[in-house]
Amino acid sequence: MQWPSKDVLYTVIFGTETPAGRRFDLALIVAILLSITVLFLDSMSAIRAQFGPLLYGLEWAFTLLFTIEYAVRIYCAKNRLAYMRSFYGVIDMLAVLPTYLAVFIPGASILLMVRLLRVFRILRILKLIRYVNEANVLLRSLNQSRRKIMVFFGSLFILVTLFGSLLYVVEGPENGFTSIPLSIYWAIVTITTVGFGDITPQTPLGQGIAAVTMLMGYAIIAVPTGIITAEIGREMRRDYNNRYCPQCDKSGHDPDAIYCKYCGAEMEVAIEDEAHRH
Amino acid sequence: MQWPSKDVLYTVIFGTETPAGRRFDLALIVAILLSITVLFLDSMSAIRAQFGPLLYGLEWAFTLLFTIEYAVRIYCAKNRLAYMRSFYGVIDMLAVLPTYLAVFIPGASILLMVRLLRVFRILRILKLIRYVNEANVLLRSLNQSRRKIMVFFGSLFILVTLFGSLLYVVEGPENGFTSIPLSIYWAIVTITTVGFGDITPQTPLGQGIAAVTMLMGYAIIAVPTGIITAEIGREMRRDYNNRYCPQCDKSGHDPDAIYCKYCGAEMEVAIEDEAHRH
Amino acid sequence: MQWPSKDVLYTVIFGTETPAGRRFDLALIVAILLSITVLFLDSMSAIRAQFGPLLYGLEWAFTLLFTIEYAVRIYCAKNRLAYMRSFYGVIDMLAVLPTYLAVFIPGASILLMVRLLRVFRILRILKLIRYVNEANVLLRSLNQSRRKIMVFFGSLFILVTLFGSLLYVVEGPENGFTSIPLSIYWAIVTITTVGFGDITPQTPLGQGIAAVTMLMGYAIIAVPTGIITAEIGREMRRDYNNRYCPQCDKSGHDPDAIYCKYCGAEMEVAIEDEAHRH
Amino acid sequence: MQWPSKDVLYTVIFGTETPAGRRFDLALIVAILLSITVLFLDSMSAIRAQFGPLLYGLEWAFTLLFTIEYAVRIYCAKNRLAYMRSFYGVIDMLAVLPTYLAVFIPGASILLMVRLLRVFRILRILKLIRYVNEANVLLRSLNQSRRKIMVFFGSLFILVTLFGSLLYVVEGPENGFTSIPLSIYWAIVTITTVGFGDITPQTPLGQGIAAVTMLMGYAIIAVPTGIITAEIGREMRRDYNNRYCPQCDKSGHDPDAIYCKYCGAEMEVAIEDEAHRH
Repeated sequence: MQWPSKDVLYTVIFGTETPAGRRFDLALIVAILLSITVLFLDSMSAIRAQFGPLLYGLEWAFTLLFTIEYAVRIYCAKNRLAYMRSFYGVIDMLAVLPTYLAVFIPGASILLMVRLLRVFRILRILKLIRYVNEANVLLRSLNQSRRKIMVFFGSLFILVTLFGSLLYVVEGPENGFTSIPLSIYWAIVTITTVGFGDITPQTPLGQGIAAVTMLMGYAIIAVPTGIITAEIGREMRRDYNNRYCPQCDKSGHDPDAIYCKYCGAEMEVAIEDEAHRH
Repeated sequence: MQWPSKDVLYTVIFGTETPAGRRFDLALIVAILLSITVLFLDSMSAIRAQFGPLLYGLEWAFTLLFTIEYAVRIYCAKNRLAYMRSFYGVIDMLAVLPTYLAVFIPGASILLMVRLLRVFRILRILKLIRYVNEANVLLRSLNQSRRKIMVFFGSLFILVTLFGSLLYVVEGPENGFTSIPLSIYWAIVTITTVGFGDITPQTPLGQGIAAVTMLMGYAIIAVPTGIITAEIGREMRRDYNNRYCPQCDKSGHDPDAIYCKYCGAEMEVAIEDEAHRH
Repeated sequence: MQWPSKDVLYTVIFGTETPAGRRFDLALIVAILLSITVLFLDSMSAIRAQFGPLLYGLEWAFTLLFTIEYAVRIYCAKNRLAYMRSFYGVIDMLAVLPTYLAVFIPGASILLMVRLLRVFRILRILKLIRYVNEANVLLRSLNQSRRKIMVFFGSLFILVTLFGSLLYVVEGPENGFTSIPLSIYWAIVTITTVGFGDITPQTPLGQGIAAVTMLMGYAIIAVPTGIITAEIGREMRRDYNNRYCPQCDKSGHDPDAIYCKYCGAEMEVAIEDEAHRH
Repeated sequence: MQWPSKDVLYTVIFGTETPAGRRFDLALIVAILLSITVLFLDSMSAIRAQFGPLLYGLEWAFTLLFTIEYAVRIYCAKNRLAYMRSFYGVIDMLAVLPTYLAVFIPGASILLMVRLLRVFRILRILKLIRYVNEANVLLRSLNQSRRKIMVFFGSLFILVTLFGSLLYVVEGPENGFTSIPLSIYWAIVTITTVGFGDITPQTPLGQGIAAVTMLMGYAIIAVPTGIITAEIGREMRRDYNNRYCPQCDKSGHDPDAIYCKYCGAEMEVAIEDEAHRH
């Protein structure tokens, strides 16, 4: 077979409209998930003991595969620097780098570093983000309520600091609250209603304060929910209300409205219904 | 008494309108709940030790009862294959099959298989679904926000994979995070605010990352809530706008609609207020 | 002093408008809270060991006090049988009965907690309209979404039964899932995101199923929230939208609207604003 | 350099508009966070053992800094008593007082008192509230649903008391439910879905009641969420309807308003759509 032209490669690798492009994306997703699976199996000591070499080989196979993909992406990118600097460009590089780096660090040496490198390959999962494109409604909602949520977390930070310190005083190291940061960790565990139970108040007073913390968390969990719910509700309403009557120019019509509900004029439907149907 | 005709049987067994049909359904629900209770008691070693034979007898009684029901359903079904292939047809079969299969597997043999069969009888509970018919409003809401929720779980999957792996690196096997999948399990336990506490971070860094995980979970729990709330809110609003156009008799008009959005005829406002008031 | 007439007693004991009536209610609330405090202290072994006799005396003092109150209520009730059969009548009796019963049945004294139900009478003093109104809004919301919530719990019941049994099979007694009911208890603990951690899956398969259970619970917690939120939202909107333009009879006006936003006609404001201002 | 005038100091310290004022605020925030960090490190025994003297020195440095700030604030305040009595005035004093008090209490004496004083310095974090000024939307929402939430917590209090006492009766001291208050603490831990797991029911009956408690908590968590969500939704809708009447220049009009609801003047619709679109 003759080597495909740069443009063809581009439409296949970067594009998602053409059948070839879709097949390529699908193949890539499968490869990513497989490489992640290899990483999972590799982390289970029992399995590594038995299939270590095999997993090692697979790992290198995937690394080479993604290296080639990265190289080709650079080769056929319209603007190479722009791609390499882009979010996905960095991710694509980070997805292959650790394996190469791991070679230069003797496995016997600092264990954490090696483990870290081995696990950084997990970043390959971020390659999937490319294919989650319905996410933007959610992201828009989150983004629009960004400041409110920041304020919320700001007050939450003040709350957990106060309650954590309070329990550090009341319970003290002898009951497991060995430091203020740890007590704040406990307060976060409690106010988010996670409640591991590895650290729990023992004194009646401490338990009383803990109860207040829980009830507070129970009540304020409503706040972010309320913010985002209202936000999403509006997003959805907007998705629905973006039709304007040609005569009275009023909005807020249902997607299936044929006549303006305010002035009775006929409305054009096609586009909106299309937009709405998917 | 003379044997009832096929049609009579059909209306009694499949129908729910006639008094006889309703009585039959009620009897069946009771039978299902009783057989489930037997299954529960049978699973408690103390009780099985004492009433084993009795429970075994009851088990067979219910199995025969449901077998007869299944046979009659097939007998009087309008389209037998359609029924046998239908969701409920399969459930009705699965509800009796395990008991018969259990005979051919010596109780002493592979314990799991027997336990599995014994517990598969729990599927009888699915027979109850037949009688939960208000569910469709909820299901419609869930179904309409299907894609958004899938996106949500997609991002959740990426999040727990990243945080799980991070804690696997930071805490490591010595603190209970023995493998990446287990660490991801921990991340799910944490981000859903379940917090069993069987595995907990021990290092300050690990606890810090855990705190971030919790706060993230605490914040994003708002997202599905927001989606479904907005969806249900709209469903309800739709249910609520039960105004009928005097000309085309179509419903689904907004409370403030002056003209029918389907045929453009003028609507009277009074009824809407009535509808609103109740 | 001369003995007060039956009517005077009635207005003081049952009424809440007169100053005397309000003082009586307040005194009663204090008495109730004190008697409950006694009950709390009495339940703490250390304190009972020290102040046992004192607490016993106080207990009898409160019992006699409430007995007298009960007797007087019967004496001056307009319709005695009606009162004795009423919710509060039963509560008032249950509040004193246990202490007397305790004489004959040692150990039954814990039924004294029933006295807490008398706190419901607090709702009477909250007759400062606003509070009861607020409570009505909540109750109306809960009541209107009653059936939906029942359906929700129906499906939840089926879910926990299936997941519980599944974990009973996978984990089995050796991992703490000693019976199906206990496993269902575990499933409820998990799906409600409580997560005590007294029973946790040990096998990878079990942990996988547990993860699914959590994510399911994490997602469906949104359903009741959605239902009630939509319900309350509508309740509130109704509170706000109950003004009609005298000219075009349109509703949906803000409480502070002076002119109809649809036809520009002047609206009467007084009553609505009063209703809204409190 | 010459000493700045009282007014200049005022605009710098109390004002937030001028560049100088903003710089001062920023510096203060950094100082607060640093002093909190010192407090955190000071609470970790390992670090205190090593850097005790250094931390002690830093602590005094920050105390003096905040003392000077407090003094200058008093000096240049328009109304000194008003400031000293104000919320922030009290906070500013509490932020420095403990360090001075700690001098007069021999470190060897009652440990709690010293610890308490040392931790009270955490109140410095409240100095940050000054800079969280977007919070008022959230606060308005919370404030407007204040009464509803109080009613909610009232019923919650009754619920946990009943369920707690019930479990105290069913499980009893031998299973960890050593007193009614402790059992109520357990009920709060459970109904808020925190679920520490330090105390758990052991008897089947107790577990059954616990399951009911959880499901109840799982359902009623929806109530505050619903209240606040509806409240915030309305707040936002109000924020969002930023249309101004061309005649009376009042805002707060609904997107579908044709006439100003305050003065009855006709409004143009276009702007609203703009506002809607962003």
